[in-house]
Amino acid sequence: MKKLYLIGMGPGGPEYLTIQAIETLKRTDVFFMLEKEGKGKEALLQMREHILTHYLGESGYRVVIATSPQRRMEADGYKEGVKVWHDEKRALFERLVDEELEEGQSGALLLWGDPGIYDQTVSLVADLAASSGGTLDFEIIPGITSVQMLTARHKIPMNRVGESITITTGRHAENCDPADLDNAVVMLDYNASFQRFKGQDMDVYWAGYLGCPDEILVSGPVDEVSDDLLATKAAVREKKGWLMDIYLLRRRQRRGKGDA
Amino acid sequence: MKKLYLIGMGPGGPEYLTIQAIETLKRTDVFFMLEKEGKGKEALLQMREHILTHYLGESGYRVVIATSPQRRMEADGYKEGVKVWHDEKRALFERLVDEELEEGQSGALLLWGDPGIYDQTVSLVADLAASSGGTLDFEIIPGITSVQMLTARHKIPMNRVGESITITTGRHAENCDPADLDNAVVMLDYNASFQRFKGQDMDVYWAGYLGCPDEILVSGPVDEVSDDLLATKAAVREKKGWLMDIYLLRRRQRRGKGDA
Repeated sequence: MKKLYLIGMGPGGPEYLTIQAIETLKRTDVFFMLEKEGKGKEALLQMREHILTHYLGESGYRVVIATSPQRRMEADGYKEGVKVWHDEKRALFERLVDEELEEGQSGALLLWGDPGIYDQTVSLVADLAASSGGTLDFEIIPGITSVQMLTARHKIPMNRVGESITITTGRHAENCDPADLDNAVVMLDYNASFQRFKGQDMDVYWAGYLGCPDEILVSGPVDEVSDDLLATKAAVREKKGWLMDIYLLRRRQRRGKGDA
Repeated sequence: MKKLYLIGMGPGGPEYLTIQAIETLKRTDVFFMLEKEGKGKEALLQMREHILTHYLGESGYRVVIATSPQRRMEADGYKEGVKVWHDEKRALFERLVDEELEEGQSGALLLWGDPGIYDQTVSLVADLAASSGGTLDFEIIPGITSVQMLTARHKIPMNRVGESITITTGRHAENCDPADLDNAVVMLDYNASFQRFKGQDMDVYWAGYLGCPDEILVSGPVDEVSDDLLATKAAVREKKGWLMDIYLLRRRQRRGKGDA
């Protein structure tokens, strides 16, 4: 039997790991570090390596670095692109488990935030485990998400009384009817879709590089802060070469349906 | 200046605290433990006390136990009832900060899961800090939510490709159109509203006492497991006198809009 731990590492700093995550690090033989090619790659790998040296020192474990496949835009539509990408990623996991783990050993993936949220690693590893004939098991260790960091830093609750919370993607925020969102956290927004919510009497609570030393917070009425926020995003992306950001959109004048 | 830390303690076991939360415990002078009157009160207080003795030992801090006000059902409608309840709770916090904290000291509330989710403590403490004339500051320390524990234990992702996540209440699940939910985590459901989702081609992933030694998991098609789940809930509530549970409803046949 081989075992894979999918460990939520939170937003990046070692202080955001749970004791359960740290105990799991100590039981792990091989750490798989997968990162996409791109400008942030080195910084993102370094944050993971810092966590390992912080809690485990320099030795007693093995690190395998692999390039994570990226979704190819030329594929036939969004769903087909995702399918090809997932097939490639599943094949990579399969190869890593076969070639880099010995019988009885455990491997781990340190995943940003929580393993279950906007990361298909859980599904891919569940597929592998299901088709392994009982030779591969896996376990999920929850981690602090950027959603929680966002609201903690802005000192706001995730929801008001009786209100639902929606966590969605930039892709959805770009296409939905702005009147349909009352309280939504938007992740993976590459096109600054908050601009679509002008004139909706909404506030935005935005953060870049959450939990990192150069964290930035911006909040205010969408109508008033959108332009400055666009300028801020462009400036920091230019300076660092990459940007991880997230925001919450909240309608100021609540409608009756929020009480339902 | 006085300071209040709102610390997310996760689902209850000491292993779910982050290092950030543990470091904050060590900086705290007074712990306020608020719990509602009821059958689970002693067990819930004991879990908090266990966390303190586990990380801090028996001395060097003070514990103040207070009875948390409860929402009164006789009040004039849901919103009015919530308002009265919040006024009472804010007054309690104000009294605790005034009487139990000295100048320069810090107090902490150990809150289940994450402080920002379905807990109005953040808003109430933010009100107090805003009206304190700069004499009270507060900080939020994120914790692992029961939403994350639920999906980790069931070994499922929180969302499928391109899909939004909804976190909502039993109150909403009891009143909404079942066709409107595709992927929703339901918290605070006192009326087993999952029964309303029969005939909707949905799966349910349910958990009781998450992260506790007597954790129970049930999953399967709503149409098939609802009756057993009702019986299980009744039996464990009878046995222990209280139940903390949560579930995820997921539509099996996805509709096109999930890809939007």
